[in-house]
Amino acid sequence: MLHAKTLPIGVFDSGVGGLTVLRALQKQLPHESFLYLGDTARLPYGTKSPDTVIAYAKQAASILIERGIKFLVVACNTATALALPALQQQFPELTIVGVLEPGAKAACEASKNGQIAVIATEATVNAQGYQKAIHRLNSHATVVAESCSLFVALAEEGWLEGDITEAVARRYLEPLLFAVPDFTPDTLILGCTHFPALLTSIQKVAGKNITVIDSADSTAKVVAESLQKLNLLNDSQDKAKTHLMVTDAPGRFARVARHFLGKELLSHQVELVDFH
Amino acid sequence: MLHAKTLPIGVFDSGVGGLTVLRALQKQLPHESFLYLGDTARLPYGTKSPDTVIAYAKQAASILIERGIKFLVVACNTATALALPALQQQFPELTIVGVLEPGAKAACEASKNGQIAVIATEATVNAQGYQKAIHRLNSHATVVAESCSLFVALAEEGWLEGDITEAVARRYLEPLLFAVPDFTPDTLILGCTHFPALLTSIQKVAGKNITVIDSADSTAKVVAESLQKLNLLNDSQDKAKTHLMVTDAPGRFARVARHFLGKELLSHQVELVDFH
Repeated sequence: MLHAKTLPIGVFDSGVGGLTVLRALQKQLPHESFLYLGDTARLPYGTKSPDTVIAYAKQAASILIERGIKFLVVACNTATALALPALQQQFPELTIVGVLEPGAKAACEASKNGQIAVIATEATVNAQGYQKAIHRLNSHATVVAESCSLFVALAEEGWLEGDITEAVARRYLEPLLFAVPDFTPDTLILGCTHFPALLTSIQKVAGKNITVIDSADSTAKVVAESLQKLNLLNDSQDKAKTHLMVTDAPGRFARVARHFLGKELLSHQVELVDFH
Repeated sequence: MLHAKTLPIGVFDSGVGGLTVLRALQKQLPHESFLYLGDTARLPYGTKSPDTVIAYAKQAASILIERGIKFLVVACNTATALALPALQQQFPELTIVGVLEPGAKAACEASKNGQIAVIATEATVNAQGYQKAIHRLNSHATVVAESCSLFVALAEEGWLEGDITEAVARRYLEPLLFAVPDFTPDTLILGCTHFPALLTSIQKVAGKNITVIDSADSTAKVVAESLQKLNLLNDSQDKAKTHLMVTDAPGRFARVARHFLGKELLSHQVELVDFH
């Protein structure tokens, strides 16, 4: 691995949601280059079965690995919850970090009473990924998780605030945060990378007393520490670059991406790769 | 084709939406057997590109054809709009009917002023499938189409009525039905097989003066006429059967399907097929 340090960090998600993680990574690691893949031909992952998500995640990782990467970030909660061990087994030579452990760690640090609520996709909730990760850190923690499927559609549609989004947030969050017996969470994990786009509406319903945890920043910190330990930080003077790729519909990706990247993106800036 | 008449009719959709069409077919053709495939491993089709939808539709059709069918119904507007010609070219020996032409015909028959609104997925709207089909029947018709992405998520979540669903319906429909200059539609096509599940909410916003067209019934009539013409109606005394298959997550399909079939379904009644 002669020039491993100068290779990009690979990042993948089922679509645009992982761009919230990419953004945090770019901020945390300004000298690193990134290769991002959105598996838009098969999105969403959050309603699919473990076997199917594992198959898709392996293919997505393979595309990035073939291009040459020094480190892999699974910027999708569903893929992390369902496929991270399978990916680590398939690609043992590569360090692979998901968004779930860093999010669980940040929540455990933030929570004073050890009562933590999680919102995520159906598949992530069913896999109990956050429950397990939190209990490894704090076996006394109480964790309740609920799926919020409509949040993904709202974020993709760009309806980030307003009456409808707040009504949907109330419908999902009030039963979870304020109506579960013997559960008074002080921390809420956004367990899907789409959800940070709706932060304003979510925080409005959750109120000031609940800390909302977005795993993007904590993942970026974990990646930075890991690169440091592995002696893989890019120390060249080359300009850091980010290259975006999708498995389908680059135009739509570019259009929806602005809600996640926080800036405009043009379709010619996104490469379409053949995933077959 | 010795026993062609006794073969089932194949029906496919990206997921559960096509069950509204299956239900209409079962009602119209009580002596026929059906083989239904929901391509749940790759759903939704409505946000994907023409090339990808064509590839998925060909694979879905192939699965049904390999099992033995006498007729194919594409019970998905997006697959019809983007892939019907490609399917007809790929499988010239088979009669293939989509939901788009029957829906357009029903709308042209229902409309008195030739002003027709269409709601559909992004991909169907972009392909202008309804505009073209309606103009072939009535070149003077005015057609305005809008995508309503959140309707799919609402239908899958089972939020079929209530404040949120009506607010979403108002947000999509009021600008389309009541605010386009020189456009006063008297007919609204539900151009996605998910949308009939939300009919009550949609009709409430559209009001009594707008006829809402669901292509399921008109598609069932076209299929019946076509089978008659082809001399393919099942005239045996065998009991008609319906077999349901999916490419992923049969449990989830069974759970969501009740909003579309109008009755309970158990996961063991749904076969998981390998689509690779």
